[in-house]
Amino acid sequence: MNFKLVLRIAGITLFIEAAAMLIPMVVSLLYGESPIPFLTAILLILAAASIPVFLFKPKPDFFAREGFFTVGLIWVLFGIFGALPFWFSGQFGPYIDCFFETISGFTTTGATILTAIEGLPMGLLFWRSFTHWLGGMGVLILTAALLPFLGISSNFLIRAESPGPVKSKLVPRASQSSKILYGIYLALTVMETLLLKLAGMNWYDAVTHAMSTAGTGGFSDRNASVGAFGNPAAEIIITVFMLLFSVNFSIYFLILTGRVRQALKSDELRFFLIMVAVSVAVIAWNIREIYQGVGECVRYAAFQVASIVSTTGFSSANYDLWPEFSKMLLVVLTFIGACAGSTGGGIKCGRILILFRSAQREVRTIIHPRAVSVVRLDGAPVSEGAIRTAQGYFIANLFLVFGMAIVVGLDNFSFGTTLTAVITCISNVGPGLEMVGPAGNFSAFSVLSKLVLSFAMILGRLEMYPILVLFSGSSWKRS
Amino acid sequence: MNFKLVLRIAGITLFIEAAAMLIPMVVSLLYGESPIPFLTAILLILAAASIPVFLFKPKPDFFAREGFFTVGLIWVLFGIFGALPFWFSGQFGPYIDCFFETISGFTTTGATILTAIEGLPMGLLFWRSFTHWLGGMGVLILTAALLPFLGISSNFLIRAESPGPVKSKLVPRASQSSKILYGIYLALTVMETLLLKLAGMNWYDAVTHAMSTAGTGGFSDRNASVGAFGNPAAEIIITVFMLLFSVNFSIYFLILTGRVRQALKSDELRFFLIMVAVSVAVIAWNIREIYQGVGECVRYAAFQVASIVSTTGFSSANYDLWPEFSKMLLVVLTFIGACAGSTGGGIKCGRILILFRSAQREVRTIIHPRAVSVVRLDGAPVSEGAIRTAQGYFIANLFLVFGMAIVVGLDNFSFGTTLTAVITCISNVGPGLEMVGPAGNFSAFSVLSKLVLSFAMILGRLEMYPILVLFSGSSWKRS
Repeated sequence: MNFKLVLRIAGITLFIEAAAMLIPMVVSLLYGESPIPFLTAILLILAAASIPVFLFKPKPDFFAREGFFTVGLIWVLFGIFGALPFWFSGQFGPYIDCFFETISGFTTTGATILTAIEGLPMGLLFWRSFTHWLGGMGVLILTAALLPFLGISSNFLIRAESPGPVKSKLVPRASQSSKILYGIYLALTVMETLLLKLAGMNWYDAVTHAMSTAGTGGFSDRNASVGAFGNPAAEIIITVFMLLFSVNFSIYFLILTGRVRQALKSDELRFFLIMVAVSVAVIAWNIREIYQGVGECVRYAAFQVASIVSTTGFSSANYDLWPEFSKMLLVVLTFIGACAGSTGGGIKCGRILILFRSAQREVRTIIHPRAVSVVRLDGAPVSEGAIRTAQGYFIANLFLVFGMAIVVGLDNFSFGTTLTAVITCISNVGPGLEMVGPAGNFSAFSVLSKLVLSFAMILGRLEMYPILVLFSGSSWKRS
Repeated sequence: MNFKLVLRIAGITLFIEAAAMLIPMVVSLLYGESPIPFLTAILLILAAASIPVFLFKPKPDFFAREGFFTVGLIWVLFGIFGALPFWFSGQFGPYIDCFFETISGFTTTGATILTAIEGLPMGLLFWRSFTHWLGGMGVLILTAALLPFLGISSNFLIRAESPGPVKSKLVPRASQSSKILYGIYLALTVMETLLLKLAGMNWYDAVTHAMSTAGTGGFSDRNASVGAFGNPAAEIIITVFMLLFSVNFSIYFLILTGRVRQALKSDELRFFLIMVAVSVAVIAWNIREIYQGVGECVRYAAFQVASIVSTTGFSSANYDLWPEFSKMLLVVLTFIGACAGSTGGGIKCGRILILFRSAQREVRTIIHPRAVSVVRLDGAPVSEGAIRTAQGYFIANLFLVFGMAIVVGLDNFSFGTTLTAVITCISNVGPGLEMVGPAGNFSAFSVLSKLVLSFAMILGRLEMYPILVLFSGSSWKRS
């Protein structure tokens, strides 16, 4: 393992984090708040990051394990240092809470330890939503674009970072495709901000909610989340954008380059849209006695389905009070999550589709043992290796969910709280049921549980393997 | 599909069910109860089963799909007809409840719809435990032993029936190995009965509890299950026998034939024993403030761990009142279940071990992409096909759990009740948490949920695929 190079890259990305903090610092100043928490954090980060960046002279060897290790390390470091402004402000509780909140931000989860959000400094709440935006597309995709300038192949980093099982390279050069994705991401965020402003939100709320949507994060500056605004138009806009950010970004690339027909042929997209439509329909029916009329039921159902399936985690109503059928469906959607290649989390629709089809094949093989059959996606056969990886991912996810639920069980909260807390963190959604439902928060958990749940968020965001590699003995040997 | 032959075989096994009912009928007479429910049921079964047995003249073609279909059909028919004595008695509620109870019996689940067990007729409660005993080893293993006399190869039936991923044929002829397994099963049941009698139980309780243990079922003739007897010696005996019945029976065969060293080399056995030991230790520690002294904590923890991991489902205490850590661990053990080739249910330790090791391999492959590595069990490499089947099994299990939980959610019970009801049924354990905890029962569920949960029990008992084949279009075409 080339530790010097890994630390040097981590140091460079920390410079980016420090630079990013300038923006919420300006927001603080605009609202007449103290810039000291940000200023102190920036200076500390610069001091810490300078050591590997300016003193280390690493060899340029960079392989898969270095890539995975770098990615895992950077997310942890971003959490550790990004938590400093919250901590220095003294308004976010003990350091572990600040760390949890920051990891929740950068992993675009949106699980919060805050018990009362209204009244907190605007600069800090801006930083909170901004971590979603930075995390959403991956700070690393920026770094990846910079890496070629360091003379290092960035392929492995891209592989570790880009979410989802289906890697369809958009254009040959990685730095080039990063820029295109980044442009789409920025354009959609700006569009959503403008629309929310038009719908009557103020600029601050529009920007922070658009950033939280873009990263499919879910931090809101209101205790009651989006529901607090009582603004149906804004709810509908956010619903649409949550769905837009859950779609594989290469579909936008295809549409932008005129290949609309090819874009719409995606099996994953169809599966995603059907799943969303069916879920909205049955939940709207299931909550028919709680709200007034079909329109309202559909609006609440659509918002919550879009919020959960995109793994954003906003709420327009306290769905923990909905019937168990709707809640169980939302928990299942929490597991499934968004499309591959989006900013969303979860197991991903593409993987679920591959798993469905390979299960069908197993049954076919029992009936016709000698028939050869392949699993297809978008008309093309899926390789056995890709099927195996999807299966392994699903299984690892569930092993980890149940393993971590046992540990979180030590806090002795209810079965529903314990299990959905872990599921919602590993899927990067944010809220779960009962104590961690949309009206609750994660503040009551012990330090151990907060660490375990932070770990779950990073595991989910980086799709497991990079983190599991860190725990494997052989990656720690010097080569 | 050779329907005539399938129905003829099903008819023959129904004769066995009718014959089996003679025993509880005699018990009824001994206790001065009416034999009419059993007599009527026997006559009805004989009438119904005679049609395919005496009138159909099938061709002898018998392939995999016929085997799977026969197995699925027989378990459903056993439930339908086995429920008749309960129904005719008028003391077990509506027919759906009687059906649920009987499926729960034959699948050795032990989930009950009874709200008050004490005071019910002794003959009926005997039949209830007897269905466990019959189901445990598989009524079909008897039938399989008879099949060669019908001139039909019984291999496929054995394949569909014998539980677990590892098929180590004990002796060449299937009928021969059935007899050996059956002998071990009977001997262990008799041993447990005698020990329970020695420990102070009466003959009736000793026999019914031994039968429920042998099948890893869990029906007790007391509302408070084994805990009602307040008999620590009996609890310890049952603990030991629950574990004995969770072990792969071929291990006993090896021990009986002097190959003790080979028997103890089983990776699955070691994994199982370590898992049980660790679970008992941590639960005993977790419940230290509820009970008096280390001995009592260990006794309660050991009983409950053995009960859940063997998928029996007896209880010696209301563990739903234990801390969440212990409950979550018990839920995870519910998923895992017993060893392959035992009478227990669940995903099986052997499969979990294969999945663990293939996950480790995935991580190794990331670090050393060009290294070839195999998954090993008992020192020998596991075939890629076997790994894929284990993975598929795990995934299908969880898809079905979450799918069925959504449907059961329509009844609007709590998250913990809904989810653990499905898990405990598909793993053939019996009790779950909250409303379906050890002090609760399944009576409050709707007819739809009772059907779904019955389906879950059959799915679990027959390890999915035979049942999924029934739902596949191509098995319904005439060949």
